[in-house]
Amino acid sequence: MRSTTGWRAHGQDSLSAATIPRRDLRPDDIAVRVDFCGVCHTDLHSLRGRSGDEPLVPGHEFTGVVSEVGADVTGFRVGDAVAVGNIVDSCGTCSMCLADQENFCREFPTLTYGGTDRHDGSTTLGGFSREYVVRDRFAHPLPAGLDPAGAAPLMCAGITVWEPLRALGVGPGMRVAVSGLGGLGHLAVKLAVALGAEVTVISRSADRAADAAELGAVDLLVSTDADQMAAARDRFDVLIDTIPVAHDLGPYLKLVAMDGTLSQVGFLGPVTVEALDLLVGRKKLSSAGSGGRASTAAMLEFCAAHGITADVEVLPSGQVNEALDRLARGDVRHRFVLDLADLS
Amino acid sequence: MRSTTGWRAHGQDSLSAATIPRRDLRPDDIAVRVDFCGVCHTDLHSLRGRSGDEPLVPGHEFTGVVSEVGADVTGFRVGDAVAVGNIVDSCGTCSMCLADQENFCREFPTLTYGGTDRHDGSTTLGGFSREYVVRDRFAHPLPAGLDPAGAAPLMCAGITVWEPLRALGVGPGMRVAVSGLGGLGHLAVKLAVALGAEVTVISRSADRAADAAELGAVDLLVSTDADQMAAARDRFDVLIDTIPVAHDLGPYLKLVAMDGTLSQVGFLGPVTVEALDLLVGRKKLSSAGSGGRASTAAMLEFCAAHGITADVEVLPSGQVNEALDRLARGDVRHRFVLDLADLS
Repeated sequence: MRSTTGWRAHGQDSLSAATIPRRDLRPDDIAVRVDFCGVCHTDLHSLRGRSGDEPLVPGHEFTGVVSEVGADVTGFRVGDAVAVGNIVDSCGTCSMCLADQENFCREFPTLTYGGTDRHDGSTTLGGFSREYVVRDRFAHPLPAGLDPAGAAPLMCAGITVWEPLRALGVGPGMRVAVSGLGGLGHLAVKLAVALGAEVTVISRSADRAADAAELGAVDLLVSTDADQMAAARDRFDVLIDTIPVAHDLGPYLKLVAMDGTLSQVGFLGPVTVEALDLLVGRKKLSSAGSGGRASTAAMLEFCAAHGITADVEVLPSGQVNEALDRLARGDVRHRFVLDLADLS
Repeated sequence: MRSTTGWRAHGQDSLSAATIPRRDLRPDDIAVRVDFCGVCHTDLHSLRGRSGDEPLVPGHEFTGVVSEVGADVTGFRVGDAVAVGNIVDSCGTCSMCLADQENFCREFPTLTYGGTDRHDGSTTLGGFSREYVVRDRFAHPLPAGLDPAGAAPLMCAGITVWEPLRALGVGPGMRVAVSGLGGLGHLAVKLAVALGAEVTVISRSADRAADAAELGAVDLLVSTDADQMAAARDRFDVLIDTIPVAHDLGPYLKLVAMDGTLSQVGFLGPVTVEALDLLVGRKKLSSAGSGGRASTAAMLEFCAAHGITADVEVLPSGQVNEALDRLARGDVRHRFVLDLADLS
């Protein structure tokens, strides 16, 4: 067993630096020196929704450099830049894994933190740490040219919105709306614009207009303005709803065009809709979160080709609790990324 | 003003025969002698969910014979067999009407009963009556060869399931499941089978196996059998859920295949799903109810070509209250149809 330093939960409110264990490398493992790790709403939920004293080190979108490779590893060498997302293992043999959808593995994929290691049964500890040991198949080469800090959020926020954009065939000629401009939302705008769609941001406040325009959106729709919302009825072929809390989907479904889809990616609890809001206009509701290895690789390649990374505010990892507090208040543009260099 | 006899609500429990008004024919109206009218769950909900003393004559899927035509009517002649569904008018000028989706008319279509007439503001009174006066565009020629009693339910139950089957591209090579074997469900099975799909019925009871097989289903899945449900996980490209009461969609969503859709057509209130049940397998939720004129005409043509009508139990209209009571108990195979010949 080896060890590293990480930010471990202390009660439900804060994280403190602690020595945490890392497994010795298996033949198909690599060790990664974690340089940058994004701060996701899931991290906040995991910490604040904690019921007991189970070990928790958050962080599931990170970039870094390979520091050691297992005996059988051929795809990586020490010094390679890599990126890791929220899945670090899967059964590899079920129909979903065989269809490149390890995120839907029938035995449930192993999550980057809070998951159960398939070999030793230990609870996985996340990327808010200086080192991570991961099965080689679940690390991705970080394409040259992508800033490692800005690329970290691609591995959860990015792939989560990439999946529905691709599944719903977003491209030229399509009208896409994105509600919420946080980590997921701002990447959804950038990706949809790069895919050729005409993108509108939906926000509670007109203050985000310049921000939306800078991301490539053609319009900002203010959700609290009843007239604007009424005028936009049935307008969008696809609506990616990234709002990270439970909310009424009715007003958003009304904006979806005939035969269009609302993909709700920001909040993964129970969702209630009026059947009539789906019925009228033959609309569909879907959801998304993370993606398989092939899809993640395609997303990274697309981002490299289009120069897309997240807009991030980088903080030394010692400010992780401040980052979580500010994220809870929505005080971030658009994603916090921790710089782990301050951990020994 | 002319009049006819119909079954009008008396409190929330029962209908009684009463003289009801019908408008004098406008230039684009036809008068229809109603011969057969199906009994739909909507009729039950309208009666039992009634709060005040507003006039109510249910019935929105009927067949009959043209008895008179307005001055400008060219598409129908006295003596023609016709069928009418749950929409009797729409604005005709909005984008939905122009796209042959009068059922989604932006000004809301005029419902066959409980609607508001667009010209005189009166409340429409339905097909549980001996005569109905309807704008010609919203009556359909009843194709020769379709039994008028069995064809009546096509106009609401039939078109309601036809719409999602067509919108979701159901055809050869697709696996379709239908939950519930009432009016909607049994027609969904017949139509999906005729469209070339492999159809499975989902029912609470194995008792429906012979029934399902007779309708053309290849299999019956018992929803109360956890092993059967687990074995059928991710099996169906399309699941048409016709269960007419609020219920947990989770177990049904688990049966839907990757990228498949659950269309919930039986219950039109609020629907709650777990986002994860949509997320895992990238599944979609939709709903449906009625259809536009073009789609209804296509459905009737398809039914005529494939000899499809509803399996009905025909009762004299004097037994309407018994039919409603038995429908509430699920004691029907598969749709009650009232024979209005007993009304003078």
